[in-house]
Amino acid sequence: MNLTDYLAPRGANHVPLTPLDSLRRSVQLHAEKPAVIHGERRLSYAELGDLIGRMASALRKQGVGAGDVVSVMAANRPEMLALHFAVPMIGAVLNTINTRLDADAIGYIFEHASPRAIVCDQAFAATAKEAHKRAGSNAPLILCDHGAKAEGGLLSLSDLVAGETAEEISLNEVKDEWQAICLNYTSGTTGRPKGVVYHHRGAYLNSLGNVLSLGFDQRSTYLWILPMFHCNGWQHPFAVTAAGGTHVCLAEVDPGEIFSEIERCQVTHMCCAPVVLYMLLNHPDRARRDATRRVRVGTGGASPTTALIEGMDALGFDLVHLYGLTESYGPATICAPSEDQAFADAGEKARYLSRQGVRHPLVSEIEIVDEGGAPVAPDGETLGEIVLRSNTLMAGYYRNPEATEEAFSNGYFRTGDLAVRHPDGCLEIKDRAKDIIISGGENISSLEVENVLHQHPAVLIAAVVGVPHPKWGETPCACIELKPGVEAPPEEEIIAFAREHLAHFKAPRRVVFCDLPKTATGKIQKFELRQRVMTGGE
Amino acid sequence: MNLTDYLAPRGANHVPLTPLDSLRRSVQLHAEKPAVIHGERRLSYAELGDLIGRMASALRKQGVGAGDVVSVMAANRPEMLALHFAVPMIGAVLNTINTRLDADAIGYIFEHASPRAIVCDQAFAATAKEAHKRAGSNAPLILCDHGAKAEGGLLSLSDLVAGETAEEISLNEVKDEWQAICLNYTSGTTGRPKGVVYHHRGAYLNSLGNVLSLGFDQRSTYLWILPMFHCNGWQHPFAVTAAGGTHVCLAEVDPGEIFSEIERCQVTHMCCAPVVLYMLLNHPDRARRDATRRVRVGTGGASPTTALIEGMDALGFDLVHLYGLTESYGPATICAPSEDQAFADAGEKARYLSRQGVRHPLVSEIEIVDEGGAPVAPDGETLGEIVLRSNTLMAGYYRNPEATEEAFSNGYFRTGDLAVRHPDGCLEIKDRAKDIIISGGENISSLEVENVLHQHPAVLIAAVVGVPHPKWGETPCACIELKPGVEAPPEEEIIAFAREHLAHFKAPRRVVFCDLPKTATGKIQKFELRQRVMTGGE
Repeated sequence: MNLTDYLAPRGANHVPLTPLDSLRRSVQLHAEKPAVIHGERRLSYAELGDLIGRMASALRKQGVGAGDVVSVMAANRPEMLALHFAVPMIGAVLNTINTRLDADAIGYIFEHASPRAIVCDQAFAATAKEAHKRAGSNAPLILCDHGAKAEGGLLSLSDLVAGETAEEISLNEVKDEWQAICLNYTSGTTGRPKGVVYHHRGAYLNSLGNVLSLGFDQRSTYLWILPMFHCNGWQHPFAVTAAGGTHVCLAEVDPGEIFSEIERCQVTHMCCAPVVLYMLLNHPDRARRDATRRVRVGTGGASPTTALIEGMDALGFDLVHLYGLTESYGPATICAPSEDQAFADAGEKARYLSRQGVRHPLVSEIEIVDEGGAPVAPDGETLGEIVLRSNTLMAGYYRNPEATEEAFSNGYFRTGDLAVRHPDGCLEIKDRAKDIIISGGENISSLEVENVLHQHPAVLIAAVVGVPHPKWGETPCACIELKPGVEAPPEEEIIAFAREHLAHFKAPRRVVFCDLPKTATGKIQKFELRQRVMTGGE
Repeated sequence: MNLTDYLAPRGANHVPLTPLDSLRRSVQLHAEKPAVIHGERRLSYAELGDLIGRMASALRKQGVGAGDVVSVMAANRPEMLALHFAVPMIGAVLNTINTRLDADAIGYIFEHASPRAIVCDQAFAATAKEAHKRAGSNAPLILCDHGAKAEGGLLSLSDLVAGETAEEISLNEVKDEWQAICLNYTSGTTGRPKGVVYHHRGAYLNSLGNVLSLGFDQRSTYLWILPMFHCNGWQHPFAVTAAGGTHVCLAEVDPGEIFSEIERCQVTHMCCAPVVLYMLLNHPDRARRDATRRVRVGTGGASPTTALIEGMDALGFDLVHLYGLTESYGPATICAPSEDQAFADAGEKARYLSRQGVRHPLVSEIEIVDEGGAPVAPDGETLGEIVLRSNTLMAGYYRNPEATEEAFSNGYFRTGDLAVRHPDGCLEIKDRAKDIIISGGENISSLEVENVLHQHPAVLIAAVVGVPHPKWGETPCACIELKPGVEAPPEEEIIAFAREHLAHFKAPRRVVFCDLPKTATGKIQKFELRQRVMTGGE
């Protein structure tokens, strides 16, 4: 049986897969429901749909058309959410930018992505203008804060939108599900950032995967801690909207605010990096948290430690451990204990959860392969590289065929992350390939050492990096951020503590107490740390 | 930005959408979990995966290859479930047949579909052999009952499978998501049945829609009442498997068995036609039902009446009203009150639920259009035809380009069902186009009349058909199946009861008490009934 001729796809039975369809359904079905809350401001789905329709129309008038890039530097606000739909609605490509980057880095992105329009918060306007100038861009600069007035050569999105009639949410500009929807630049720790191109099909499918993995439905209230500029908030703008849930925007990451918004808005879900969870654990407002009203928390970026998982559990947060990359639209694996899964104690549960787990729904394949490309034994010991095959992988790197071909070698996407497969099928990352410390020919997982250090009562966060050593090649150096108000213990005490729990060659030979440099998404910048330690600039 | 050249789809980032991927994930993730229960027999996901792999291998040895059709006549048993995956796994097309059809009708299907192999239960072997002979087929006939021995020229699937090594569940034979996965023949009330061709993409997407709409997850236990041969059980073999839930097979529809399996297996979900729900409501075992343990019931095929919905609610069943067609892979709309939806009383809730509702998740568009193709006003009154645009629509009718083009005219799929759109967006079917009674130029919805008759205490099921009338063209005739043990009231009492609740021209002019003819899926065969009434053969 061949589905050709009159059995081939046609307009009625082959509709491009796109998150716009999810939006359209929720605006139709949940018109009166709150779609987004930001402080005292509330928009229903009908109002959000209207805002998006008017934004789409306003952007069109600014000359943005199909295939054009729109760059955005904005905090988690309703306009940022709306842009996730308004830009693709006119067939354009949303380029959200890490707002903590400097004008030089952003100038590079403007130069590389050639946006047709640049939208930013007032807070980032100076940087945006400077970057705009450096890139020699002639795109209009548009302020997107709610109610902001045009000033200093920048237009006001509020004003532009106020004069528009809302376009109908249609799929007309999505000619093909393999059409670009977003362009996200990697953090570029090892060189210039790469522009990761997302397509409508992948964004739609990964957002459905999120609905399934986190259990979003129309009763869900999602607190925006994770920046939307980070892999488009792991596709949650699309996922929460598809489920007809409510977005709660938090412009700044503040633990006190997080605790109070959880109560005020009856939050059911949130996502953030472990570093934010540490803040919550160590904040005085934790006393106000009603631990019986559970909140499901997706976390990733760095592996949550045993101590963190145990502490969060007691505080009413059910952790789901997600792992992924910008290139995989966020989550590619999930580790969440099922309800019928029995654990001896909280520690055992936490050890289980510290693994990266199994393939995320709608990811087709995740393998751990050796250097020859063969799957490693599922023995929990043999190290290999994680490779992926999935509809939820980027189309490639924008204007960079070489890096694209390298990433997609051998029919898989190569993550560069090193992991083992446990006998139960769960995978566990031992390290980024580049973060493994090789000492006397032995691999030391910095993560394993960090996990031990996190159990020391004085430690808030620990990061372990390799430093050159004349005899061993490299040895581990522990960089430790202390809990607030805690005095630094002697270096020897930390080393002795590590030796109690680790093979001696894995224990740090040096301990540095300092504030750890973090990326905007809460990842420890080990590259930076390594340099600091080596130049003595801690 | 154009996603061509090195940004075009490749094997690593474009994987065919297929339910086989869902199976593979559940076998990997839920290996030890019960996948299917049938009486005392239980298969874990690992065992189900193994059975499927061996079946695939056995079918290959019987000469079944990519694109070949495999016809199946089987009850809801683990083998039937397994065939839903084993046949597509080798690139072949599963043709499940209504087991209540006679040898003539099945012979027509065999002739039209030219199966490469025919699989059947012992109970249907005689019919299958007869049909096989009439069609002049040379396909092997294979018995699929668990443990059945080869006999009378039929092979035994159990024996074939026993000798095989399981093939790995791979997507290798799914070269394209637009590849045929199933072939389902319509009931053919108005002529020869048509062969509806499903593709992998549609089956996958509709099954995800089911997971979202019914809320399946790994804790779900689904009771198989709805025959799997009916639109492939509305895609639930794929949906429950995707969620990692447990299938409970029920070979025969018996209300007592249903009540006892719900208790024994802790059933959370089931689907069936309203006619089965009436049986449950009127069965003595209803007294044993613990109404606090709610079961979610998807129902459709005919509109549930107010009395039915109220009664089921009290008995611990939460009804979800689904509407769809064979051509839409089952569900295309859903009506389910949300938790925050307030109703004045059970009657109001029931009236709400008797509507067909809104588009099912992953259905792109559902419109009600007038004869010119324009959407009707959402006033709850203006009648139009329901049309669909969705990835979850058939590729077309097998070997029937004319009927396919007719069904897909004007860029939509035409359902032939007449409905109104309410101001809140919900749609409500007034009748099948062919079941509308036109009396004196006025349209009478047989459904509306039936809804009233169902409120009469003696009525179990009512079906209203139009009979020719010299003056009015047609007038309504009510055919009534009485509750068990209830004496037939006088014809005049029923007519008077109807006139109390309806405009007089809508009230039946004639009442016939009889057992109603039903299809295998519990739909009343109005075509048949109309003929009986007209020839006086009731």
